[in-house]
Amino acid sequence: MSDCLFCKFVRKEIPTRVVFEDDSCLAFEDINPKAPVHVLVIPKKHVASINVMTMEDEAVLGHLAFAARQIALEKKIDQSGYRAVFNTGPDAGQSVFHIHLHLLGGRPLAWPPG
Amino acid sequence: MSDCLFCKFVRKEIPTRVVFEDDSCLAFEDINPKAPVHVLVIPKKHVASINVMTMEDEAVLGHLAFAARQIALEKKIDQSGYRAVFNTGPDAGQSVFHIHLHLLGGRPLAWPPG
Repeated sequence: MSDCLFCKFVRKEIPTRVVFEDDSCLAFEDINPKAPVHVLVIPKKHVASINVMTMEDEAVLGHLAFAARQIALEKKIDQSGYRAVFNTGPDAGQSVFHIHLHLLGGRPLAWPPG
Repeated sequence: MSDCLFCKFVRKEIPTRVVFEDDSCLAFEDINPKAPVHVLVIPKKHVASINVMTMEDEAVLGHLAFAARQIALEKKIDQSGYRAVFNTGPDAGQSVFHIHLHLLGGRPLAWPPG
């Protein structure tokens, strides 16, 4: 998607603070972090939201969780714990319509999650 | 896992309020709901947490998001929006060590997510 901010990150047209990258995903620091660790993990494939994902996207979405785990290990929050969050639509405050997993950790996270 | 509560739900040894089921996942109402819609979506395969998932589990984890989308459609929160949350470890308050996606919707969800 030519106008999608996160696709521009994937294409390296706009710089971002990358913390992890592989063939199918990119992870970078949230610009407005809400925890000591707050990273966004996105598929390189443009999928606007969970609302429009197909069964073909399941593996790449599951891979975001696997990448989050690897980042949690690197950030040393795997044992203290972390939360992974997908927002879809207005009630969840989704602001960029390219699926992203929020990985938060490094502090106790309250319940409910919003 | 013989002693896992969620595995007992999968095997129907303990009744729960099922809202969705297919070959690889089960979804049921959270017993302590934090939103008008609060459903847990779990893989039928026992995986304790994202910390111990393998790449083989990626498709089944991604399928939880696809199932959440179908439940959001049925619950009529797909357009208003919803949040999908995985908790891992103590800082996130993970209480049952069988991976579960919390699907919350039906009200505005604050930020940060905990």
